[in-house]
This record gives sequence, structure tokens and C-alpha cells, in this order.
Amino acid sequence: MSELVGNVLVGQSGGPTSVINASVAGIVSEALNHECVEEIYGTLNGVLGILNEDFIDLADESQQQIRALRHTPGAALGTCRYKLKSQQDFERVLEVFKAHNIRYFFYIGGNDSQDTADKISKLAQNQEYELRVIGVPKTIDNDLPGTDHCPGYASAIKYIATTVREVACDSESMGQGDLVSIIEVMGRSAGWLAAGASLAKRRDHPHDPPHIILLPEVPLNREKILEDIQRVLKREKFCSIVVAEGLVDEDGNYFAAEAQTDAFGHAQLGGSGDALSDLIGANLPGIKVRVAKPGLMQRAAAHSASKIDADEAALAGKAAVEAAIDGETDKMVTLLRGEGDTYTCETGLSPLSEIANGVKKLPADWINEDGVSMNFQFLRYAQPLVQDEVEVPYENGVPTFARLSKVRVDKQLAPYVSA
Amino acid sequence: MSELVGNVLVGQSGGPTSVINASVAGIVSEALNHECVEEIYGTLNGVLGILNEDFIDLADESQQQIRALRHTPGAALGTCRYKLKSQQDFERVLEVFKAHNIRYFFYIGGNDSQDTADKISKLAQNQEYELRVIGVPKTIDNDLPGTDHCPGYASAIKYIATTVREVACDSESMGQGDLVSIIEVMGRSAGWLAAGASLAKRRDHPHDPPHIILLPEVPLNREKILEDIQRVLKREKFCSIVVAEGLVDEDGNYFAAEAQTDAFGHAQLGGSGDALSDLIGANLPGIKVRVAKPGLMQRAAAHSASKIDADEAALAGKAAVEAAIDGETDKMVTLLRGEGDTYTCETGLSPLSEIANGVKKLPADWINEDGVSMNFQFLRYAQPLVQDEVEVPYENGVPTFARLSKVRVDKQLAPYVSA
Repeated sequence: MSELVGNVLVGQSGGPTSVINASVAGIVSEALNHECVEEIYGTLNGVLGILNEDFIDLADESQQQIRALRHTPGAALGTCRYKLKSQQDFERVLEVFKAHNIRYFFYIGGNDSQDTADKISKLAQNQEYELRVIGVPKTIDNDLPGTDHCPGYASAIKYIATTVREVACDSESMGQGDLVSIIEVMGRSAGWLAAGASLAKRRDHPHDPPHIILLPEVPLNREKILEDIQRVLKREKFCSIVVAEGLVDEDGNYFAAEAQTDAFGHAQLGGSGDALSDLIGANLPGIKVRVAKPGLMQRAAAHSASKIDADEAALAGKAAVEAAIDGETDKMVTLLRGEGDTYTCETGLSPLSEIANGVKKLPADWINEDGVSMNFQFLRYAQPLVQDEVEVPYENGVPTFARLSKVRVDKQLAPYVSA
Repeated sequence: MSELVGNVLVGQSGGPTSVINASVAGIVSEALNHECVEEIYGTLNGVLGILNEDFIDLADESQQQIRALRHTPGAALGTCRYKLKSQQDFERVLEVFKAHNIRYFFYIGGNDSQDTADKISKLAQNQEYELRVIGVPKTIDNDLPGTDHCPGYASAIKYIATTVREVACDSESMGQGDLVSIIEVMGRSAGWLAAGASLAKRRDHPHDPPHIILLPEVPLNREKILEDIQRVLKREKFCSIVVAEGLVDEDGNYFAAEAQTDAFGHAQLGGSGDALSDLIGANLPGIKVRVAKPGLMQRAAAHSASKIDADEAALAGKAAVEAAIDGETDKMVTLLRGEGDTYTCETGLSPLSEIANGVKKLPADWINEDGVSMNFQFLRYAQPLVQDEVEVPYENGVPTFARLSKVRVDKQLAPYVSA
């Protein structure tokens, strides 16, 4: 393998996580170790920044700021949900890469982002432009195939489990057999996040909150859930429920869609938590319901991040650079769990095309027969991932995060006008 | 002052805070220092536990658990929103106190709870039953008069400011001039909590998020808010809004519809965030809106509590015991801020009747002229309160909290049947 000399480009794409910037830090720190890397650029807002040549010089950032990326939420380079549309878009990407001698492209993202990276890589191969493209996994949804888990997921469920346990303390102390507390978590098509709430239970305490977890994988039976709630209220004097936003009913329709109007005829924004609150209100008179909807909080709560997760996100970035320098391309870094009793994690590589077109589902046999709780297989999977806490520096009582100086790289081309 | 020998009763009332249990810890630890205190009981679920003689022996709890109360959210003794209704209720309270030789009653709560404590105290005086009643302030609403601030408030705004800053990192990285991120916080009639979000701004960075704070004190002008949002979107490429649940419009109506009222006749609100999202959706086409509603999370987030707050909550409990032993009664402990540049805090006492009937408003001149941000006077007030972090122990990646063994005290009376 001949040494490929040129510049690195790093991009972030899709919804951020608490640790997506740790992967940037891992890439930058590792890239600096290799003499074949001349410049280290970041693209602002993913592929949008490539189309518009909005690059910043990451080597120009202070080491302090690069280190601070390890505990900074959001996507420090900016992200996007823009999908490259046309052949013209892809041609532009390559034109920009050539203009800036980009030879190493690291794209941190989920399925769609890896698909984009794959297409860029293939176009470069067709045009015989030597480019090494390595994807870095990122998603709180934990749905990428080929990897044991995805950076970002563990911090999200650590936060969710913490929140569920804390709110349960509150609800338990308020409850007189009449209080249902609902936390609506993200997860449109898979229950990975909702399932993570089960980490709030102490080991061997199946009756600990959350008492009911409503997963997108288990269609909601309205009679059964009302019975379940009543049984929990009788036993525990309060009921802690975690519901995924993507909960469906037995007809396969989103449960949230029903919350278009409430009992008073007022327009309601669709939320599965609010819909469940309405269902309870309409059927269980005298029961109080409190709904919390953390929304973006659950993927931004860096102050509560898992250290394992942040370290692995950085490791994935480092591994991406090492692989590219070694001549690999058109692959995504994966996380591989060791076989032993003690949790260990190594990185591997998987073809981008396989990542782009696959989805990792929550295994059905990790859900208990009751349909509303997770069994030991899930706990064995998830528990090692949330261990240890990231030390976030505080200033004036609030966490402080990285602020990149974002020194712009000179543009080489005329502005892009898409067809 | 002759020494009053007898038993202590501690109760918690109203909505919990992250640090309400620190006050219990302060009371128990201090009460143990005084020989005139024979037993230390806790009443389960506030006045409900008194009516039903549901007492636990707090001296029987391990020191480990009492210490763990300092970082445990919820009300470890249970709380209630039950309001003593009749003369019969009050007579029963005194009957129970006499049966258990309760001579010191410490009630941790907000306005309504202090009102209850006041009435119990006055009835005891009328009946010439020697009883010392000291209230301990508690409320995230920060609306008790006579005290510089209320234990629980600082931890809530520390959490809110942290959350606003984190979510802003996320929204900023997603924003292309088209993203509005709304966080709806508690605050029925006062903007203390929403105002606290301003701590997310760095000093001398007025354009930092949150860009718009909508307080109950400033009626919503629909045209102005839409203009404000568009201006921020143009300048910052995203817009971070914090809205209090009790926001009213210019006609004085709640911006979010009233749903129900609680036992004290307070409106249970929710949905100002969704209502604002609707307003934006109807008037600013192409703008994406994300709403987060932390709900109970903001008063239960012990993992993010202010150390100053937790320490002061414990201090207030300790001061309550000292005052009662000294012969004080019918007072609430207050927190008094020192005059100097460096923040200091001492305790004082204020008559319960003044607490019960007063409300501390957010000073109008702490709000900037723009109506959507706070000035230096608020920051000077709030910033010292959120300093330092409580060290919460984690086990298996999730914070661990106190679990009281709750050894019951034998009942002395026949069950209570209210008229």
C-alpha cells in the first residue's frame, strides 16, 4: 500500500448525540500523528459545507478546545439532514474534494450519512480519484447494523434511566394510588431508547420503576394497558411509564396520531405521552397523569454522559483514521464486544453499503412476555455501556463546552448553484 | 425558657424538590444533639400521615441512609397536597400530637404548607398544649416571602440552565435559520424558574441562548413574539426559547388552556410550549419547531443539584431545630443573604402567618426592557445560588438514592374517619 499524502476532511451529519464531538476529537488527535496528513479540515453542516466549500481548519483549533469536544453536546461542526439529490450534487462533492486535495474523508453519522459516504466513495473510485472514505457510527437510535452498539446510545439511555429513577422518587412520594407519571422518549421505529429506561431498576427488583415500558415493537392494546396501570397503582401506589414516541396500536397506526384533539376539542400536538394521558383520563377517572417529554434533552445531556460511551466515540474516530491510513476505504468503524465476562470493546470495519441498507432491531426475545419490560439479556447488553461518568467542567454553576474558533479555509471554486 | 421535653415530628408537603430531603437530614442530625428530644418521628405523606397516625421512627434509620437523603430527590417521607378541611381535621391533628407527645413539629413546604403549620400552631396555643412549630421553606417556585430564596429553587434553575445550554448546542448545530427550540418550564404565576434559564448565557454574551424567555409577568404579544423569533433566526440561525407554563396573553388568559384544578384550586397547566409551537407553525411557514417539556424532571434532577442549595436546605433544617429548642414557635426559617460582595447566607425567622399569606414576586425591574431577558440584577441574585455540584454516588451507571426502612411507630388511637 503506497502512502497517500493529502488532506483530511471531517463531517458530522444527522441528529447529534452527547458524544458525537468526541469522535471529532479522536479523529483530529489521531490524524496529527501521521505525516501523510497535511491539513485537517472540518466541513460545516456536513455535505452542505462540502457543496458550499464551507471548511474550517481544525488543526488551527487549540488543543484545549479539541479536548473540550470530548464532553460537548451538539455537533460542533454543525450537522444537516440534507440529502445529496442529484448526480450534479455528487459531482460537486468530488470537484470540491479535488480542489482541496481531500484524500481522507471521515463522516460521522447514521444510516443515511453512511449511505452518502458510500456513494461519494464509489463516485471517486469511478473517476479514479484516490480517496479513502471511512464512516464513524453515531446515533442514539442504536440501529446501525454490523456494530454491537452505536456511540451516543449509551449516554442517551444513561440519561433516560437517571431521569426515570429521579422522577420516580418524586412520583412515589406524591402518589396515593392515583398518580401516573409518563416519560415520552425518542424512538420512532425501534425501542432501543425506551428499553434503556429499564436500567433504572435495581438488579433483582423487577417491581422498581419504570413499571411499564411501551415499545414500538409491541402494539398497544388499550384494554391491557389500562389493566396494567390499575394493577401497578394498586401495588405501588404510583405508576411510572416510559413510552416511545413511535408506539403503534394494534391496527399498526401511530398511537400519537390520535391525540389530534383532546377531551375538550382543543387541538393537540401529537405525542405518544399526551395520547396515553388522554387514554387514561378518559378511562380511569380520578387518576392524575403527569407527562414529561425530554425531546432533544435526551441526546444533548452531556452533563450526564457515559464515560464508556464518550471514550468509545473517541476510539471510533481514532480507529477510522488508522484504518484509512492503512489503506482501508468504503467502510464504517464498528464496535465489537469481547467474549469474556468483563466488558471489553474493540473496533472493527464493515462495508458502508451493508450499513447503509440495514437496520439493527431490538431483539424480540429481549422483551419479557408481559410486553412491557426487558429481560436479563437486554440488561446484560446495556448495563456495561452506561458505566462511569464523564467529568464535565462547570463554570458559574453551568457546564462549559467547547467553542471552536472556526477559522475558514479559503474557497477555491465558484459558488455552487444546484440545478 | 423552660426546657420542653418530648418528641419531634417531621413532615414534608407539596411538590418535592431535589433537595427537600436534605432538610430532613438537617433536622434529624440536629435533633439528635438535644437531650430534650426523646423520639424523632416522620409523618408519611404530610398531614395525611398525621390524621392516620402513619409515623415512622427516623432515629431508627441508619446514618448512611440519613446522609444519603442529602442527594435524594422526591420526598422521602412522602408528601401530599391534602388540605386540612375542617375543624375536626385540626382537632384530630392535635389529638394525635398529644397521643405521641409531639412537642416539636417541623413542616417542610411552601405557602400552603406553612399556612397549615400556622393553623396547627394556633390551635395548640388555644388549647394550651405546648407545641413548637417551625416551618422549613421548600419550593422550586421561589415565591415564599421573607426569605431571600427558597431551598429547591437553585437546583431547579441549575438544571434548567444546564439543559438550555445543552439543547442549544444541539439546536445550533442543526439550525439553518429554520429551527426554533422551545423548552417549557414550570411556573404557574411567577417567572422565577424561566428567568433562571438566563444563567445559560455566558457573562457579557447577551446573544447567547436562551434568546427569548417568556415569563408569566409579561403578557404575550403574538405579533411581537413572531417578530422576535424571526430576528433571532436571522441573526443566530436558530432560536432558543424558554416559556413558563403560566404564560398569559394580553387579555390575561392563559396562553395554554386550563385543564383542571388541584386540591388547592390552582390551575394545572401545561402546553404553553405546544401552544407556542402551534402559533409558530401557523404563522412562520418552513420553520421547524422542537418542544421539550421536562415537567417533573426539573424538580427531581438531583444528579444536577446545586451544592449551595443542598447545603442550605440542610442548614434550614438544622436552624429549625435550634430555633424550636430555643423556644421559638410559629415561625418559618428564612435564608438571609449577607451584604458583602462574596455570597454568604445565614438563617433567620419569620412569622408563619406572614409567609402563608404572602407571595414573593419576581421584581419587574429585573426584566430587561425587551421583556424577554433578565438583567444583571437577576444574575447577581441567582448566580451565587447555583454554584458547585452535589456529588451523587452512582451504581451500575445510575445515581443511587436513599431508601428509608420506615419502621412504623405504634398507633395509639382509633382510625380517623373524617366527617
